Amino acid sequence: MILDQINQPNDIKKIAPKDYDMLAAEIRDFLLQKISVTGGHLASNLGAVELTMALHLAFDLPEDKLIWDVGHQSYTHKLLTGRKKDFDEIRCFGGISGFPNRNESRFDAFNTGHSSTSISAGLGLAQARDLLGQDHYVVSIIGDGSLTGGMAYEALNNASQMKKNFIIVLNDNNMSISENIGGVSRMMNSLRTAPGYNGLKENVSTALSRIPSVGEGLVRRISNTKSSLKQLFIPGMFFENMGLTYLGPVDGHDINQMIHAFHDAKRLNRTVVVHVMTHKGQGYAPAENNPEAFHGVGSFVLETGKAVKKTSRTYTDVFSQVFCAMAKKDSRLVGITAAMPEGTGLKLFHHLYPERFFDVGIAEEHAVTFAAGLAAGGLKPYVCVYSSFLQRAYDQMIHDVCLQNLNVTFCIDRAGLVGSDGETHQGLFDLSYLQTIPNMNIFAPKNCYELADILRFSAEFQGPLAIRYPRGTAYEGLKEFREPIQYGKSEVLYEEQEIAILAVGSMVETACAVRDVLKAEGYNVTLVNVRFIRPMDQALLERLALTHRIFITMEENVHSGGFGEHVDAFCAEQELPVQMINIAIPNMYVEHGSVDKLKHVISIDAEGALRQIHNALAGRSEE
Amino acid sequence: MILDQINQPNDIKKIAPKDYDMLAAEIRDFLLQKISVTGGHLASNLGAVELTMALHLAFDLPEDKLIWDVGHQSYTHKLLTGRKKDFDEIRCFGGISGFPNRNESRFDAFNTGHSSTSISAGLGLAQARDLLGQDHYVVSIIGDGSLTGGMAYEALNNASQMKKNFIIVLNDNNMSISENIGGVSRMMNSLRTAPGYNGLKENVSTALSRIPSVGEGLVRRISNTKSSLKQLFIPGMFFENMGLTYLGPVDGHDINQMIHAFHDAKRLNRTVVVHVMTHKGQGYAPAENNPEAFHGVGSFVLETGKAVKKTSRTYTDVFSQVFCAMAKKDSRLVGITAAMPEGTGLKLFHHLYPERFFDVGIAEEHAVTFAAGLAAGGLKPYVCVYSSFLQRAYDQMIHDVCLQNLNVTFCIDRAGLVGSDGETHQGLFDLSYLQTIPNMNIFAPKNCYELADILRFSAEFQGPLAIRYPRGTAYEGLKEFREPIQYGKSEVLYEEQEIAILAVGSMVETACAVRDVLKAEGYNVTLVNVRFIRPMDQALLERLALTHRIFITMEENVHSGGFGEHVDAFCAEQELPVQMINIAIPNMYVEHGSVDKLKHVISIDAEGALRQIHNALAGRSEE
Repeated sequence: MILDQINQPNDIKKIAPKDYDMLAAEIRDFLLQKISVTGGHLASNLGAVELTMALHLAFDLPEDKLIWDVGHQSYTHKLLTGRKKDFDEIRCFGGISGFPNRNESRFDAFNTGHSSTSISAGLGLAQARDLLGQDHYVVSIIGDGSLTGGMAYEALNNASQMKKNFIIVLNDNNMSISENIGGVSRMMNSLRTAPGYNGLKENVSTALSRIPSVGEGLVRRISNTKSSLKQLFIPGMFFENMGLTYLGPVDGHDINQMIHAFHDAKRLNRTVVVHVMTHKGQGYAPAENNPEAFHGVGSFVLETGKAVKKTSRTYTDVFSQVFCAMAKKDSRLVGITAAMPEGTGLKLFHHLYPERFFDVGIAEEHAVTFAAGLAAGGLKPYVCVYSSFLQRAYDQMIHDVCLQNLNVTFCIDRAGLVGSDGETHQGLFDLSYLQTIPNMNIFAPKNCYELADILRFSAEFQGPLAIRYPRGTAYEGLKEFREPIQYGKSEVLYEEQEIAILAVGSMVETACAVRDVLKAEGYNVTLVNVRFIRPMDQALLERLALTHRIFITMEENVHSGGFGEHVDAFCAEQELPVQMINIAIPNMYVEHGSVDKLKHVISIDAEGALRQIHNALAGRSEE
Repeated sequence: MILDQINQPNDIKKIAPKDYDMLAAEIRDFLLQKISVTGGHLASNLGAVELTMALHLAFDLPEDKLIWDVGHQSYTHKLLTGRKKDFDEIRCFGGISGFPNRNESRFDAFNTGHSSTSISAGLGLAQARDLLGQDHYVVSIIGDGSLTGGMAYEALNNASQMKKNFIIVLNDNNMSISENIGGVSRMMNSLRTAPGYNGLKENVSTALSRIPSVGEGLVRRISNTKSSLKQLFIPGMFFENMGLTYLGPVDGHDINQMIHAFHDAKRLNRTVVVHVMTHKGQGYAPAENNPEAFHGVGSFVLETGKAVKKTSRTYTDVFSQVFCAMAKKDSRLVGITAAMPEGTGLKLFHHLYPERFFDVGIAEEHAVTFAAGLAAGGLKPYVCVYSSFLQRAYDQMIHDVCLQNLNVTFCIDRAGLVGSDGETHQGLFDLSYLQTIPNMNIFAPKNCYELADILRFSAEFQGPLAIRYPRGTAYEGLKEFREPIQYGKSEVLYEEQEIAILAVGSMVETACAVRDVLKAEGYNVTLVNVRFIRPMDQALLERLALTHRIFITMEENVHSGGFGEHVDAFCAEQELPVQMINIAIPNMYVEHGSVDKLKHVISIDAEGALRQIHNALAGRSEE
């Protein structure tokens, strides 16, 4: 096995060029073997094997800096930088991350996770290099899907001012997670198929001659690729009009061709875009045929591509089903996703109501203001988005939706801990940032039935409404509690006196377990399903304060600015004579690992919550 | 006066075409007369007079919808829609807003204020129209400066899917607030000057023939404008490659030419970009010669363009001076602005250290991640930005700066109430949203000397640091209190017992006045200059709780998630036996008006704060 020679960083430079293709095949096999067991991002990594090898061969790491946009294609990079031995524990608690991480390796130049940041970060590293008088290369590797994010354009726009070398590798696989959307995709397609641009042929050599330092050899080499010169010209215009130098397209599975292109790019003292064509899922038929399904996967059977575990019904599934039923009755309902039709559960809706479905690309800012426009025009838009990505549209919620108090519903999936994707993807902040926004209403359902109920409630609701629910299996317990939803009102599951637990969404289940233990210890315990985080059910808190001496809040959100702090503040201002105990995520980034493991580590599982409660109660009794 | 005939909406349609130019001149004169007294946005409005008239003539309002990007160019639109009589009170409390506002007029189709939102909103309105089976036009008017914002690209990308009519008017004046930056500007410049694209000439008619429904007449008309066909071709490629139809360029001061172009655009069942060339400040020599200075103005002498009031020293000035002095000593310091070199005080730095100054365009998201890259590369970047605009980079602070705990300093100007720009521009949320972010440190200086001190402190500080200070005159009082800055420590100005006032930044001055009154009433009052909002000086709070029965927090930020709530929560959790009184901005949008007036209206001036405190103390004593 050639792969046996890859252990330390830069071992690839000792491999004979004739063995590159064999090594690529072995790496692909290695990734398949490992990811089929651990789960992880598959299709993007299979597509980037040769590209990563070529980068490692053409550049000198760690002096040269590679910034991987999103970062879910960085497995081969990890493998080539001394982390091959760590793949059994990738994305597991204590193991290596599924994304680049500066704390993990000095070969990871910049942490990534969200889309479209790599050009901005790379441009910063390149400018720092120049001002500090250093001499190395900076390379940002960005997919065509990430180019639909506006930040990438902001950075391209700025990069044209760069007077020294900065290399942007456009990894073009004609996909983001799902199919690409809109004008950028169309532009890229025009490159691939070049329909009707024959009249431009004669201008191509002129255009190429405008690129400084590009000799005839490169022109000839590029013109000999499977893509013709006229294909080269079109995207060249786009990038060159922005002041950037364009090289390509290059076959992203031909290592030598890429090495040559990278060496050409190194010679130019300016920002260069190297356009590399890759195939998502390359080399594994199930992933090639269905790259969306193989974007991020759990364990699967290598031979068939079938998932090992039968997946249980998720909150996403519940949303999907209920929303489609609602849409059938009410034609004002429209659904918006930022390149996540599958992940957010809008795929069925897309199938049933294509004209009311909007996939806007990886573009959360636009998604939210677009929804505001739809609402101002009289429709009832639902923005379906992950908690961590909605952070990107904070200003649009403030400035475009809530200022005008528009009827936009936010269906916030992956709220709370998401697990193995780790710190860039955890949905820890939404309760905090949403509560800062005037006019915003916030709801968290305790189980799948309540998600259905709040969705139905939302159809007639006037104003902005955020509904947040966690990743994974929809909780089906507590079905005996299903009080009709009333605006701003909590649901009291058990009312006693002494201790009142106020639990938000996913924590209601945990709170039941906590209550059982406290009951067994002899306490009288009320349990409230908070439902509306905003507006807060202040009347209930005031009433409970008459008969309870302790309030325990429980939420799967950071403590800072979360539900608990707002209850603390309310009780303090109203001088309610209760002791406050807040169970929440500490105000920190939470790494990767299974959700159960993480909840245990940060003490928000039943055991950890009880330990915190017992400590607080003990503190109280010692006074 | 033709203008006398303009009173009700659509009165312009009764004006004879021969009088259009005279009316334009009278409107320009009217705006100059009014703005020279009230202050307001000048250059952008002078540039858009004929454009606005042409839009009102070519479209039927309010059925057709106009969305003004940013909205600071909407004065002529307000004048033409029945608000001419209201211009004496524009931007004053109770008067009309300086921006479009749906609550103000049904002719204002969508509220704006921040840049680059109009295409998203317009696309939403257009899609809603089609789904609801309505029949009207939707027109978004966006400046070339706003095109540097990534959201605009996200929306253009999405707009290519539009199967019915949606018109984007590109109001191209080669400026944002300051000069335009980067590749987009370069692209636009290539349109204006068309250097070296002669070889493309022969393809232009082919390109035009690809635009459906554009007859020869239009081709001829466009080709007869002062811009030649080859100029038309270049940006056409850019927009057409994204699937958009391009018309133009059209002279933005020639009303008839624009009306023709808009009628052509109305005939196309798709997204059309109409490129209109205008001149910022048109018709007023001082503004034409210095459009940046005349972007937003206070009162000025019409004849000379000179400001009426001598401007006093602002916090921006203090920042500018101190930062340049620091930069002289430390070459690692770099400054970043998102198209606001003048407003953020980086202009002098740009002049002195051009290679360390980065204006990235109207692109806050990129600005912050770019700064993260600079910091990861070993520099010490300062991101200089208004509070309200930093909202746009919330995720980038979480995901790119604070997750990696990078040395980025945020100099947050216009924090708190900004006054006459109103609800879209008030900096009310920064203390709340910044406190949700792990690793973020937050400081607010009480006066100009302390701003200088924290800036000097920041040079050696490790980690993300946000410094927030208000718009306007730098407070020079309390200079006798200048304790050296210690990380995480507050400054105690007066220590007594009974009542402790914890005041943040601008509110320290107010707190002194409040303290004087409370002292006169016989209370013993401690006064703390909070300095570090995060980390909170918990040790001080615990110590003060031993000798005080009341804590009063004071901040120029919304209550929800602000400093006061965090102190409430800390005291509740620690069971500190103090009564809490929070003086803060209620969790609402605050309209336009002078800062003093607004502080009075929302009861955070000394009088209002005292009233709230007296009410709370009375409540206490009644118990």
